[in-house]
Amino acid sequence: MRKAIHTIVFGLGLILTGQAIAQVSEKAQAASEPRQVILIIGDGMDDQQITIARNYLVGATGRLQLDQLPLRATSQVLTIEDKVGGKLVYVADSANTATSMATGVVTSPGRIATTAGSDEDIITIVELAEAAGYKTGIVTTASVTDATPAAFAAHINFRLCESPDLMSDINLWGLQLGNCQPDLKRNGGKGSISEQLAASGLDVILGGGRKYFAARAENSERSVRQLAEDNGFGYVNTLAGMQSARHERRLLGLFSSGKMPVAWRGEDGRVAEVLDKNSTIPTMRCEPNPKFASSPTLKQMTDSALSHLSRDNPLGFFLMIESASIDKQSHKRNPCGSIGELQQLEEALQSAMAFAQTHPRTLILVTADHGQAAQLIPYGGIFSSESEPVRSPGKVARIITPEGGILTVNYATSTSSDEEHTGVSIPLLSNAEGMGLIPAFVQQPQIFDISRKYLGL
Amino acid sequence: MRKAIHTIVFGLGLILTGQAIAQVSEKAQAASEPRQVILIIGDGMDDQQITIARNYLVGATGRLQLDQLPLRATSQVLTIEDKVGGKLVYVADSANTATSMATGVVTSPGRIATTAGSDEDIITIVELAEAAGYKTGIVTTASVTDATPAAFAAHINFRLCESPDLMSDINLWGLQLGNCQPDLKRNGGKGSISEQLAASGLDVILGGGRKYFAARAENSERSVRQLAEDNGFGYVNTLAGMQSARHERRLLGLFSSGKMPVAWRGEDGRVAEVLDKNSTIPTMRCEPNPKFASSPTLKQMTDSALSHLSRDNPLGFFLMIESASIDKQSHKRNPCGSIGELQQLEEALQSAMAFAQTHPRTLILVTADHGQAAQLIPYGGIFSSESEPVRSPGKVARIITPEGGILTVNYATSTSSDEEHTGVSIPLLSNAEGMGLIPAFVQQPQIFDISRKYLGL
Repeated sequence: MRKAIHTIVFGLGLILTGQAIAQVSEKAQAASEPRQVILIIGDGMDDQQITIARNYLVGATGRLQLDQLPLRATSQVLTIEDKVGGKLVYVADSANTATSMATGVVTSPGRIATTAGSDEDIITIVELAEAAGYKTGIVTTASVTDATPAAFAAHINFRLCESPDLMSDINLWGLQLGNCQPDLKRNGGKGSISEQLAASGLDVILGGGRKYFAARAENSERSVRQLAEDNGFGYVNTLAGMQSARHERRLLGLFSSGKMPVAWRGEDGRVAEVLDKNSTIPTMRCEPNPKFASSPTLKQMTDSALSHLSRDNPLGFFLMIESASIDKQSHKRNPCGSIGELQQLEEALQSAMAFAQTHPRTLILVTADHGQAAQLIPYGGIFSSESEPVRSPGKVARIITPEGGILTVNYATSTSSDEEHTGVSIPLLSNAEGMGLIPAFVQQPQIFDISRKYLGL
Repeated sequence: MRKAIHTIVFGLGLILTGQAIAQVSEKAQAASEPRQVILIIGDGMDDQQITIARNYLVGATGRLQLDQLPLRATSQVLTIEDKVGGKLVYVADSANTATSMATGVVTSPGRIATTAGSDEDIITIVELAEAAGYKTGIVTTASVTDATPAAFAAHINFRLCESPDLMSDINLWGLQLGNCQPDLKRNGGKGSISEQLAASGLDVILGGGRKYFAARAENSERSVRQLAEDNGFGYVNTLAGMQSARHERRLLGLFSSGKMPVAWRGEDGRVAEVLDKNSTIPTMRCEPNPKFASSPTLKQMTDSALSHLSRDNPLGFFLMIESASIDKQSHKRNPCGSIGELQQLEEALQSAMAFAQTHPRTLILVTADHGQAAQLIPYGGIFSSESEPVRSPGKVARIITPEGGILTVNYATSTSSDEEHTGVSIPLLSNAEGMGLIPAFVQQPQIFDISRKYLGL
């Protein structure tokens, strides 16, 4: 929470002062055509997730939207222990990885745009872009206060401090996980994540998380949502409301209490199962999730965000779009859920590509934040379809694909209720605007630098 | 085994006839400078394997040789059932994936450059290159008769038919796996894999597998190795012998009975272990494998191959180099073994890069054939180093890295003695010669086409 707003790009040692921000701001304004960065993050979307989704959505010989992007790199995730000069840790979470992408600084798991150990606020690409006159937006299928969107526009030591009532004792399954007391306003801090978003300069905030805005703001008789409205946001909570919202006002759309429902589920709600010694796992199909019904899709939110951000905007914008539940559904061993959310990302990417057709100075980046547990494995042995099923020690789902094959998806990183992230390096894709800007191998914090350079910040 | 030698590039429908071969041969000879393709295959080397090795070999913030290649794509693996028009299968083995890369044709697991169901021989990039006057070579840390090298220069319905005495009844763990009787010479076939290599036009064959050449050839009083010598190969079986071999003769080097020993192992030979409910897994370091001692390294074999193939060669060559035991050690849950073999690949790549410095028309491709089981997972929960170890349902190794971190590697695809492959799409990297030739997304059979185009075949 400490006030020092600075950026140290890991390995590069870049420090941005207020003066430097003013300089890049002028440079950006000198550009003749609006420029924009659309950063699309598939949470947990590693190559296993992409391959599983490819085989299901377009068939093994098909091509996803993703596969049509001309540039591909791999992104090495970096994380450290929560102390100054902390050692490297090899598996990350969504908070520190989003902080890497948003700020260029490597931090520790759970942290939202604050430094490991010393807890200093780190300026984000959204704040830099805003300072230079760009419009900015965040769109997610999670709560807008969730780690990935939060790290682009808030600063706090712990990701679960999502609303004013969640600043002191955060418990999960009876475990004391931490607190954000130094960030309470009465202690000189900026408050919880929802309060910081409400007070932010963002032009568009779309996603789930109504409950985090319903709480009374600290030192106030008003709810966090009312504070956002006081700060110039027009609030909507339905698809129709979002689509008819006035472009003159900033836009806050919250479409569910917490994270948004996912588009797909396994047949009759089935997820991966234990493969019993004397049985086989029955196959299933994916089906629409009845709970999804009237939710705006990620594509619809993306379209609204693009429309809002580009209207009467000669300079351009920075927009982060997250398909959050590829990860969340993999934690819960629900491959159909993850596939459906990857499909949502595909549709949002399609919108972004269409936008770039008419707005040529648009850099589209598509990446993940970290790896996830799911693995595509054989069911029978690999030499013969006649042999015994593979006995995974974990949980397995068998999904019939539209082309008539069977995808066997294995979840076996943990015996607890949730699967774990993995430390694998992850894809970074871009449209042709990324040529010359993105090397074949990047460290995740370089994504901040790529966005910054493209916007001339 | 059927004689029709043809190529059908999956999805492209290219058919090469004898006449077409003569035409491309002339085109290739018209080139003014020698051209070569060096195809380096890390067996099972998916992004999990690369990330684990990166973190160990150069640290999480370091860069491998691989990471310095300027071009990166992803390669979608394709496999079908063993029948004509067979359905797609989503997890492959090394035989059908090598066939994809060597011939451009998608086939079924276990097959060596023969078509699924119809069992027709498919012409390989090595045979095409030879016909055009290029020199050719295969180098591997496996037996030279193993699936990956075999698919570049032999044609047989089943990968385990590696020598004349293994053509009829192939058993593994008491299971009848198949036979290659139609390929027996007395049945009009070309014989076993070792016999086909002995009779081949290859200029360099280096690796393990002496036992497959010690057997008596079918219809002959002579061993397979003697047949190779009759066919013009100089035979060596030591590092010194390889390094002093005359360049005028073709080179057959066999340095172990079966697959070559690996460079590294876990401390005191330890591999991944079951994580007991009431215990923690002790950490370990990687150490040199004492059995490796006097074996030639993959780099030494690569250097000899490059020297042999480039000497007095105005046209150029095709060379396949395989680090085979990244996969084999992952099957056996030995992360140090896999890391050491990835290090071997790194060194071979360094040799290839140095060669390309002095031979500018050299396309270096680095890829895997399929994914493998290993996953880099957290040990404590991802939010706190204080919490309980993650309870993997599989087997886990904890390796202390030179930078002082701890890599936790999980193997949990199977409860049997061997882990399984995965169906994940895999990296394809290249040097700058690949620019304009390699899109960001390829299907694995396109690697054949890329090599062919580069050599003007």
